[in-house]
Amino acid sequence: MRESLDALSLDALVVTSAVNIRYLSNHAGSAGILVMTRDSVHLLVDFRYRDAVRMLQESPAACAGLRAWDVPASYDEALLMCLAEIGSSIVGFEAAHVTVSKHDWWQRTSASRDLGITFRSTERVVEQARLIKDTAEIETLREAARRLSDVATAAFAGVREGVSERHVAGVIESAMRAAGYERVAFDTIVGSGPNAALPHYRAGDRMLSSGDLVVLDFGGVLDGYCCDLTRTVSIGSPSAEARQLHAAVFDAQRAALAAVRPGVETSVVDAAARSVLEEHGLGAAFGHGTGHGLGLDIHEEPRITWPRPDVPSVTLAPGMVFTIEPGAYLSGFGGVRIEDDVLVTETGCEVLTSVPRELQML
Amino acid sequence: MRESLDALSLDALVVTSAVNIRYLSNHAGSAGILVMTRDSVHLLVDFRYRDAVRMLQESPAACAGLRAWDVPASYDEALLMCLAEIGSSIVGFEAAHVTVSKHDWWQRTSASRDLGITFRSTERVVEQARLIKDTAEIETLREAARRLSDVATAAFAGVREGVSERHVAGVIESAMRAAGYERVAFDTIVGSGPNAALPHYRAGDRMLSSGDLVVLDFGGVLDGYCCDLTRTVSIGSPSAEARQLHAAVFDAQRAALAAVRPGVETSVVDAAARSVLEEHGLGAAFGHGTGHGLGLDIHEEPRITWPRPDVPSVTLAPGMVFTIEPGAYLSGFGGVRIEDDVLVTETGCEVLTSVPRELQML
Repeated sequence: MRESLDALSLDALVVTSAVNIRYLSNHAGSAGILVMTRDSVHLLVDFRYRDAVRMLQESPAACAGLRAWDVPASYDEALLMCLAEIGSSIVGFEAAHVTVSKHDWWQRTSASRDLGITFRSTERVVEQARLIKDTAEIETLREAARRLSDVATAAFAGVREGVSERHVAGVIESAMRAAGYERVAFDTIVGSGPNAALPHYRAGDRMLSSGDLVVLDFGGVLDGYCCDLTRTVSIGSPSAEARQLHAAVFDAQRAALAAVRPGVETSVVDAAARSVLEEHGLGAAFGHGTGHGLGLDIHEEPRITWPRPDVPSVTLAPGMVFTIEPGAYLSGFGGVRIEDDVLVTETGCEVLTSVPRELQML
Repeated sequence: MRESLDALSLDALVVTSAVNIRYLSNHAGSAGILVMTRDSVHLLVDFRYRDAVRMLQESPAACAGLRAWDVPASYDEALLMCLAEIGSSIVGFEAAHVTVSKHDWWQRTSASRDLGITFRSTERVVEQARLIKDTAEIETLREAARRLSDVATAAFAGVREGVSERHVAGVIESAMRAAGYERVAFDTIVGSGPNAALPHYRAGDRMLSSGDLVVLDFGGVLDGYCCDLTRTVSIGSPSAEARQLHAAVFDAQRAALAAVRPGVETSVVDAAARSVLEEHGLGAAFGHGTGHGLGLDIHEEPRITWPRPDVPSVTLAPGMVFTIEPGAYLSGFGGVRIEDDVLVTETGCEVLTSVPRELQML
């Protein structure tokens, strides 16, 4: 991080993304601003977090050299006071995490007070550091993914004809709590029958019925780190079409997993899955990317997708963790998605999740 | 909304806040851009939401006159294409919901393509409409708050010496699901003993023990609308200090509730609670605002707080819904918060939550 400040000729970097603040300081509040200089770290928090930060700094998770600043009322006022006091003049901010309103206020107010601060846009400074997980992060992600096996067992036991999607979601979320996750990483998806064709459906009142494909997509957060798994199951015996759809997605996932190794571009991994689905005539049925990074965010870099102007392409390197989750969705009929979490190793990848991928009949 | 476009001399307003998009269109996805003109509504969604929007538009919740646009890859590209095609030249955007990165890209790209678009900052256009709930919203909020009584009953039954905070949080979240909420509105807080002094603590491994004050703060989402309740209970008999702390907060809440009526400024409601706590010598122990608006967001306008430059002061009017939740937190000892949800009526307020407020011994 400090090398980045040097490279960008910044006196300080203002970090406003809550997840980036947590990454740099272990402070996990929903509010706060962090200011990093070349030799200090300043954490601005309000009343609500004063004790939490003090307890953090007395714990093994303390951030070395952190100075806590009290925010009596406005974070923006406190930030300008902090920058003025530490004497930073060229100050980077996270352009992807600061709104136009906030930036306008900072500019206008620091100018009217003659604080001598120049604000400079930066992009992906902390995100690039977060791309490569360190040993402790990998251990946590591995453990988070491992525990999904127990959740999947409970989920499969809860799926049967005549229960509602919402009921199954409840079973899954109880199992996540029992497995020790601090919270769910996202709203659990249980999409049955035609709802399985809606990739971001959640769970509704529909009752599972014989012949349905059911997409089960869930994940938990352990010590702040997210895991994510999808399996598609069949209620009773699947139709030939359902069986073929599942087999095609299974092949696509296998191809993508085989493509993961250091030095490969994310778009190549996506293309590996996509070309298999295209061969099955399912190119148009696969409208999303093949995967997303996992870490303190459930969706972070690297994005495993086709080349897009709005998504940074990333060359895979050891220590990256992401999902591989191709899918195929046929409107009105249903859909299939199969998702696992992988870690890039020196030679290929380690699949962190270990739940059978074959189409289960329940 | 359309009167606002006229008043601001805008051809179109680009809405990027997911909650504001839902408010205007009933589309509840995590992605999407809405463009409102004086006579049309355009909803840009990607592949994942195509079927969901079609189903929405065939349902009773359809948005009249909505035109759905397909986003093949980048939302920002699709937005510029849409604006060019509908011929908008003065285009407002939500400055509080658009990042500096995104705004820079819009400006730069539309200029380089000679699209003839001028982007103008707007503030709180949709938020001001959302401040006053309509009849359907009030019915939903009333029902959401009503169901918290069952959850509180389950919570009180689950609180006892020797169980962990996390266990109690699990009991509460199961009860929320049983009550029919689609999800929790925020991570459930169960703060016991010294943890009760951390206003935004969640729930940890600490075991409840005799003499603890325990803050229970939870809420659910029903048809998109949020409710929020806090009660503080005692494990066994409370100490005299705990009893006094609870009584002071109870008094402060009563004073704030009595202050709620049309025409009153939000800061006056806050001052009603704050002055009671100050009389008890607890002014410094009450570091947060007295309440926050409830609706599609768990924290929205109006903010019930002291006059702050960064928070719009609001004059109460019938149809506003918010929490009243004074608290007092003594570091190392514990804390008390009591929270209810209220609707401003023509003459005063209706308390939507109905759970006993007296200090319960469990």
